[in-house]
Amino acid sequence: MKEYNIALIGKGIVGTCFLNLLNKKINEISLKYEQKIKIVAIFEKDGALIREDGINIEEFANKECNFKNRNFWYDNLKAIEKIGDLELDLIVETTPTNMKTGEPAFSHIMKALENGIDVITSNKAPFYLYPDKIKNQAKKNNCFVRIEATVASCVPCIAMKEVLCSNEIIGIRAILNGTSNYILSRMTSEGLSFEMALKEAKEHGYAESDSTLDIDGYDAAGKLVILANELMGLSKTINDVKIKGISRITPQAIELARGDGLIIKPLAMVEENSLIVEPRLIKKESPLNINGTLNIIELQTKNAGPIILMGHGAGGYEAASALMNDLYYILKERNKTNVN
Amino acid sequence: MKEYNIALIGKGIVGTCFLNLLNKKINEISLKYEQKIKIVAIFEKDGALIREDGINIEEFANKECNFKNRNFWYDNLKAIEKIGDLELDLIVETTPTNMKTGEPAFSHIMKALENGIDVITSNKAPFYLYPDKIKNQAKKNNCFVRIEATVASCVPCIAMKEVLCSNEIIGIRAILNGTSNYILSRMTSEGLSFEMALKEAKEHGYAESDSTLDIDGYDAAGKLVILANELMGLSKTINDVKIKGISRITPQAIELARGDGLIIKPLAMVEENSLIVEPRLIKKESPLNINGTLNIIELQTKNAGPIILMGHGAGGYEAASALMNDLYYILKERNKTNVN
Repeated sequence: MKEYNIALIGKGIVGTCFLNLLNKKINEISLKYEQKIKIVAIFEKDGALIREDGINIEEFANKECNFKNRNFWYDNLKAIEKIGDLELDLIVETTPTNMKTGEPAFSHIMKALENGIDVITSNKAPFYLYPDKIKNQAKKNNCFVRIEATVASCVPCIAMKEVLCSNEIIGIRAILNGTSNYILSRMTSEGLSFEMALKEAKEHGYAESDSTLDIDGYDAAGKLVILANELMGLSKTINDVKIKGISRITPQAIELARGDGLIIKPLAMVEENSLIVEPRLIKKESPLNINGTLNIIELQTKNAGPIILMGHGAGGYEAASALMNDLYYILKERNKTNVN
Repeated sequence: MKEYNIALIGKGIVGTCFLNLLNKKINEISLKYEQKIKIVAIFEKDGALIREDGINIEEFANKECNFKNRNFWYDNLKAIEKIGDLELDLIVETTPTNMKTGEPAFSHIMKALENGIDVITSNKAPFYLYPDKIKNQAKKNNCFVRIEATVASCVPCIAMKEVLCSNEIIGIRAILNGTSNYILSRMTSEGLSFEMALKEAKEHGYAESDSTLDIDGYDAAGKLVILANELMGLSKTINDVKIKGISRITPQAIELARGDGLIIKPLAMVEENSLIVEPRLIKKESPLNINGTLNIIELQTKNAGPIILMGHGAGGYEAASALMNDLYYILKERNKTNVN
């Protein structure tokens, strides 16, 4: 059976969940795609576990498992130095990545592509900052780059490009940031001030300690760029998005809207090829009126009106399940190429 | 360029919309898949238009266009007699079909498959009545049978089998019949009786003159069978569904539920491999609480919680756009086989 070599770069929550799912799927994959999956490297920020005959996935899928000072552990070895030297079919890029620079994910992805290695990732920043660079490099070396996990996590919105292949997508309205939606939902249902709702969101773990990029719309804007590029064939970056956050919304404004049967929601939209993230009034009965931390994506199609997708937009297993679907996709496509 | 021969069987609303979309896409298809699409036959119940060098699609895409007494029109020629004689790559089956017998669609589909011809269809009855017969025949002759249009029309729920390929679907809750949902929605919002709401639905064109199969749950049950078989790998028929309609729901029952923050919805469900269609209480805040004629499908996934799809569940162009996506899928897959 052909061997299929993977390097996992970044073993945080998503990376660990991915290893867990992979561990459960190993036999299914070998039956379905006739490939023997091996994890040959796991890179962390202070070193790497390298084992070309395959790391014991079950052992390292454990969240608490400590890598360091083990056999096959190399202190301070960086992914960027090693990617090109390993015999790899795929990298799974799940490092903590800077939202403004896209690093280190961007460099890892480019390095992999330069070496003809396929990529799956949950890191979105490289794709709203440098979409064309990645696309061109992937095309040049005939590589797959699958990024379903970058937008709305497990919700298969990017796959809609293939699924609705004959049906042009002409507009998008979405709620892509759970934190903002949670805050506005609580302000609406409980009459809380913005500050109180934010505090509550942090207490419940729905907002991080620094949630600036959620609240000011940057996070949603990045995801919107990816949707617009992938689904509508645009070539935008985050600099093309008109962004307005939710921090100036007051309980009074919400009350005023309510009087007219309207709700304020943190929308991300593509309207006539313009990308906009801002709080917008929608009708109370609109399907977009969802509460809590769900994500929702409404695709306006040319031939069949709106098609809507919804689900959990965050979470380790949610993102890992999107990565896993991308892995299956690549295995299937590569298998076809190899068989024929 | 290779020629690709299609027969359209049944030129009603859906068939006519399909011709219209196809007419607009002809050039795109030949560029993308290097196939010259020809419609070589259009079958109606009282005869057929047959032209092996290709029918003028633009002319016949017109809804009002009368076929009969034209050149190439053959009075009383039946699809079932002719399918095997034509050089066909695909049939598009959109005849008015009996919901209890699956005919004439079932015979057309089997005939096509026996002759090695791929099938796309919007007719669901064959697939909740004789799923295994169709599946086995398709497998035997290596044919594609794509049926996205049979459930929730344009909403790409059946495609989820491929999209969520690594993520097992372990349960389904859905609203698959727009008529029933419209009636219960109006009873809930306006306090109408069942009879009044049904009358209104008929006046608005949301219910047909005989809407028995909508109201008694049979239509939703058929769609549920298809989802369960396609997405969960089951092998059910409509006889396996426990079905209860909505006609006994009273305004009093709705009022009682409302007091507890609950709503009565016409749900179709797969729970622990049992198929059930019946009115159920759901929370007012549930994403399944949609109004009007929208369809919604909640897929409970093993690894990522619920994933929800929503959209127009009926309409000529909605169904035709699903057929068109299926056509693209088959062209793509057949192209791969041919190229390699």
